[in-house]
Amino acid sequence: MVKTETLEIATKGNCDIVDITGDVQRAIANAGFNDGTVTVFNVGSTAGITTIEYEPGLVKHDINAAFEKIAPKNGRYEHEETWHDDNGHAHVRASMLGPSLVVPFCQQEPMLGTWQQIVLIDFDTRPRNRKVVCQIIGE
Amino acid sequence: MVKTETLEIATKGNCDIVDITGDVQRAIANAGFNDGTVTVFNVGSTAGITTIEYEPGLVKHDINAAFEKIAPKNGRYEHEETWHDDNGHAHVRASMLGPSLVVPFCQQEPMLGTWQQIVLIDFDTRPRNRKVVCQIIGE
Amino acid sequence: MVKTETLEIATKGNCDIVDITGDVQRAIANAGFNDGTVTVFNVGSTAGITTIEYEPGLVKHDINAAFEKIAPKNGRYEHEETWHDDNGHAHVRASMLGPSLVVPFCQQEPMLGTWQQIVLIDFDTRPRNRKVVCQIIGE
Repeated sequence: MVKTETLEIATKGNCDIVDITGDVQRAIANAGFNDGTVTVFNVGSTAGITTIEYEPGLVKHDINAAFEKIAPKNGRYEHEETWHDDNGHAHVRASMLGPSLVVPFCQQEPMLGTWQQIVLIDFDTRPRNRKVVCQIIGE
Repeated sequence: MVKTETLEIATKGNCDIVDITGDVQRAIANAGFNDGTVTVFNVGSTAGITTIEYEPGLVKHDINAAFEKIAPKNGRYEHEETWHDDNGHAHVRASMLGPSLVVPFCQQEPMLGTWQQIVLIDFDTRPRNRKVVCQIIGE
Repeated sequence: MVKTETLEIATKGNCDIVDITGDVQRAIANAGFNDGTVTVFNVGSTAGITTIEYEPGLVKHDINAAFEKIAPKNGRYEHEETWHDDNGHAHVRASMLGPSLVVPFCQQEPMLGTWQQIVLIDFDTRPRNRKVVCQIIGE
């Protein structure tokens, strides 16, 4: 009734948006249930999960531009003053976006729109190997 | 153990906020389980799901005013330059809000606060007929 | 298969960020399942749930500074003009953050990163006693 699979996703950081829809579909197929939910969860505090129309305008420019208004890369963060690092904006953005997305599936297919993909957004300032848990509950 | 129902919700677009609490309650009742979770999922990439105190000040003005600061309707979006459309802000807002909300229910009632309603927010620039999946897992 | 526990969390309001990871871990242990998901849901419309690296720079300053850009405490809100209160920004922030977080667990442990804690963020303008539902579905 519960199956858990952990994806490993290489990212470039700096608001890198990675389409993981295919990976999530494979995790659903591997679980073998017809109907249920998949919880897609990013392990770590500088990346998040959402859905988007995966096209270059949004992915390469527009999403980052909006997050620059909320938590600019070159803003002042007490997190950075404490830890002497440079990713305060990444923590703030990730907490606001959220690490978790739950998607229903039916007949082993996630119930997404035609132009709606599941993405990992990595806000950190360097390439990372991310762990993304896909936990499937179904029957 | 898993029941799936798809709601059809007519919206006016332009940050139209629709109270779907009653629809979700009916989907829970139809499923027939006493306790469990309902996953409320918007199909498509220009609307999202959250909760709000459903009163006119927030619904008609305040929420849209906040999203105007993050992704203004008349801002510049590469999405629009590519596709020659006008809804770049709608995509950005929807990705930030998220398409999915999971609400626990007990004795067939969602465990909401008294002034907390489940809403669909449609950011697109025209009226739409939205599909919102209610998937109930329970016992 | 479904177990529901309601936490009572005392908060100070005004973007008070409370680490509830230990409470959620205890709720998972109480449920007695090995693997599954916990849905962490804030009852009410002026607080939300997310994850964060729980350290003072982010918790005492950076998160609030970002929300000030979206929904400033001293901004104008039609919600306040209608109800003659002072928490319009709290409603807007809570709707944007979202009331719900789903975390997978394995061997009774939530699959969080080392520096990733589950938090309740209370945006209201006064101390509150919050109800946070932990609903565990597993086996």
